[in-house]
Amino acid sequence: MASQGVTPRSEDYSRWYTDVVQKADLADYAPVRGCMIIKPYGYELWDNIKNGLDKRFKATGHKNAYFPLFIPMSFLKKEAEHVEGFAPELAIVTIGGGETLEEPLVVRPTSETIIGHSFSQWIQSYRDLPLLINQWANVVRWEMRTRLFLRTLEFLWQEGHTAHATAEEAQEETLKMLDIYADFATNDAAIPVIKGLKSKQEKFAGADASYSIEAMMGNKWALQAGTSHNLGQNFAKAFDIKYLDKNNELQYCWTTSWGVSTRMVGAIIMAHGDDKGLRLPPRLAPIQVVAVPIYKTESEKGPVMDAAFRLVESLLSVGIRVHLDEREEVTPGFKFNDWEMRGVPVRMEIGPRDVEKGSVTLARRDIPGKESKQTVPQAGIIPTVTRLLNEIQHNMLEQARKFRDANLHEASNYDEFKQVVEDGWALIWHCGTAECEDKIKEDTKASSRCFPLDLNRDEPLRHAKCVVCGKPAQGKAYFARAY
Amino acid sequence: MASQGVTPRSEDYSRWYTDVVQKADLADYAPVRGCMIIKPYGYELWDNIKNGLDKRFKATGHKNAYFPLFIPMSFLKKEAEHVEGFAPELAIVTIGGGETLEEPLVVRPTSETIIGHSFSQWIQSYRDLPLLINQWANVVRWEMRTRLFLRTLEFLWQEGHTAHATAEEAQEETLKMLDIYADFATNDAAIPVIKGLKSKQEKFAGADASYSIEAMMGNKWALQAGTSHNLGQNFAKAFDIKYLDKNNELQYCWTTSWGVSTRMVGAIIMAHGDDKGLRLPPRLAPIQVVAVPIYKTESEKGPVMDAAFRLVESLLSVGIRVHLDEREEVTPGFKFNDWEMRGVPVRMEIGPRDVEKGSVTLARRDIPGKESKQTVPQAGIIPTVTRLLNEIQHNMLEQARKFRDANLHEASNYDEFKQVVEDGWALIWHCGTAECEDKIKEDTKASSRCFPLDLNRDEPLRHAKCVVCGKPAQGKAYFARAY
Repeated sequence: MASQGVTPRSEDYSRWYTDVVQKADLADYAPVRGCMIIKPYGYELWDNIKNGLDKRFKATGHKNAYFPLFIPMSFLKKEAEHVEGFAPELAIVTIGGGETLEEPLVVRPTSETIIGHSFSQWIQSYRDLPLLINQWANVVRWEMRTRLFLRTLEFLWQEGHTAHATAEEAQEETLKMLDIYADFATNDAAIPVIKGLKSKQEKFAGADASYSIEAMMGNKWALQAGTSHNLGQNFAKAFDIKYLDKNNELQYCWTTSWGVSTRMVGAIIMAHGDDKGLRLPPRLAPIQVVAVPIYKTESEKGPVMDAAFRLVESLLSVGIRVHLDEREEVTPGFKFNDWEMRGVPVRMEIGPRDVEKGSVTLARRDIPGKESKQTVPQAGIIPTVTRLLNEIQHNMLEQARKFRDANLHEASNYDEFKQVVEDGWALIWHCGTAECEDKIKEDTKASSRCFPLDLNRDEPLRHAKCVVCGKPAQGKAYFARAY
Repeated sequence: MASQGVTPRSEDYSRWYTDVVQKADLADYAPVRGCMIIKPYGYELWDNIKNGLDKRFKATGHKNAYFPLFIPMSFLKKEAEHVEGFAPELAIVTIGGGETLEEPLVVRPTSETIIGHSFSQWIQSYRDLPLLINQWANVVRWEMRTRLFLRTLEFLWQEGHTAHATAEEAQEETLKMLDIYADFATNDAAIPVIKGLKSKQEKFAGADASYSIEAMMGNKWALQAGTSHNLGQNFAKAFDIKYLDKNNELQYCWTTSWGVSTRMVGAIIMAHGDDKGLRLPPRLAPIQVVAVPIYKTESEKGPVMDAAFRLVESLLSVGIRVHLDEREEVTPGFKFNDWEMRGVPVRMEIGPRDVEKGSVTLARRDIPGKESKQTVPQAGIIPTVTRLLNEIQHNMLEQARKFRDANLHEASNYDEFKQVVEDGWALIWHCGTAECEDKIKEDTKASSRCFPLDLNRDEPLRHAKCVVCGKPAQGKAYFARAY
């Protein structure tokens, strides 16, 4: 149980983050380097993220399947750029059943190769297309510098893999899934995101084009919260994924892949958390309302608990996730802090005076201090709380949007860029080359986030020049310090 | 799409099984030895199994969490019997990020050790007990002879892990989870199971006592469909899982673990399948009702499809899982076979005459041939289908129970035993030693299944003697050929 506060964000943001993860009981370090243990409260949050995404995948015709954890090393090598990108990060099984394996097995870092192989068996004709598959799984990437939820050696994620008859359909799918990610981030996680194209250097190893949703964290750093890749025919050619078209001619498919991981938990923590701890958007919160009974004497306790049980029951009956904190060994004040740390959106206090008046006091986690407290009638608690949860969901998104928008800056030259990128995101005309990105990174530690789709739609590119090298720009791109 | 039939069970049961798995599109072999690919239809079935179990775990106070895939080799060695049991089956990562690891990492075959380590950190006092955790995960055991769903190198499962203050509470939990497994098998999977104690030789490596649910397959072999282990203080002592009791004294905890895996899919296939393919119990079937429109001309098609859409919509509206088979390129007869192969409980045929009469024809998968077909009014389709699905669920359980009960035999001497165990399960007084079990296996290929709890409750054991060695019996035990 969290009894003390967290390091203030202003003092040490990184320490604040780890404090929140641990004190809100979301996760902890494992005794295996770089791995984490997702504790029940963190796992329930992840489960709610999973459900929110899975629902959207199914509504758009995707089906879940499961492919092996182990991938033969030879598979990885079939797509040259892919193996080059992932080789340094692989965990490799060399011993099985007491014997040295003839061919080492890679613990999947991602599954394009093994799924590509399956697709080549499953797809015969145009009738089998599009093939829309998703997998919920664990993956392993041998990261050297790890951080709970943000970058761990093993992480949980979903990886979508689809095959299409035409380049257009593959591109449409790539952007559709990016939209689904943005919709989930905005409406469930209350995180406004910027959808955009990754630069050549930042794209997925083996993709023709990668897109991401980029979110702003509380320290104004960026976090890539989901990616969607148009793989062109690269994996189709490497794994012989072909179909007979309507003219009975064999054609290579066009494939995509897209993923969101337990990183999303880190995004939620850092987009919303404050110096009192976690703040969870109601749609994803494992506990939406915590009921805290307040009494001093045994004679007060009976009626207070009766009222508390009644209120909790009635909220549970409509599917609101309520927890009644019945602990005797800690004070109400301790409970308030504890549930604030855990980010529960609404606290419902029930004391003797509430029993008397048929009232109940509601406190919001999204608005600090006593001004957000309101005493409301017990009658009508269901619509009151439902409305309040919606309001909090909406307000958290608005708070995050305001914060983000106040920290997006456009820079027209490199000096200006260097200045604004120190404390926010900087939008510049960018040539898209690794050279300029490397220079920017060296000068400012900021990396290329994306070419936002919205800002590169109508802008006339003809005369624009990269603010770093002066060569023709690919478009406008955001740069920021990033996780 | 399945277009041809499966090998008849009487001809080659093993071939029949593989045919059904592949032709019903549940799973397929992976290009990695011993691994499988769970295809969308099989994964949906597994998801329904997961949901049925998870709901029961949560209702009994268990919470999900997630622990690392990799376990340091040194952890495994802390419990002597445990490492001895699992050592031959381990997959071992020796290379990470391009470097040889100082300490090799085991890909978890089960997680008692790493979870035991966490429990030792999480538990301080009696207030933290009981600690009731479950994990949904993949595990790896280096099996040499593998079979889709039944025994694969990697499989999906849940593993429950709990810690308690007393031996009694741990035993209570062990049996409670066994009951939950039996309840799920009986009521959701329509498989009657026998709950019992495993013999010393068959128990989990590191447990004080193991219990299982044993199910009878269509060829009268047994399949262990779930296990629940009382781990005593073995892991508590190995991992220092201690708590301060009410007298402020440090005590070792008592722990349990219990698991059900993707084997359950194999159990469902073999408990219910027939020569036409899969038969799925309605509660778990991904598709409960398949609607097949029947028409010959374009003028028939319009009204038939209209009626079909209307019926499908109305069933969907109450949460019945319906699929409308709109394929144009195959005949209704092909569709009938196809959905029979996939085990869909109810087929709903809609033809021009049905449109005329406001009727619809329902066919049951659990009763073969035309006698189970019934033409019913379209009005009231929701209660009609709901009732029918319940009836099928019930009937499948009864069919399986009758079949099983007809093949349970009690034997009073070894000759009789050898005879009956050739074609069914044999119940005998059994001493419980590995010596007698080994002899039985050599003579008959049958293995010890369990000492059924029901039959060892009231029986006076005093004078009973093992039918093999004549020494005092531990109780009555079932023996059978088993997967």
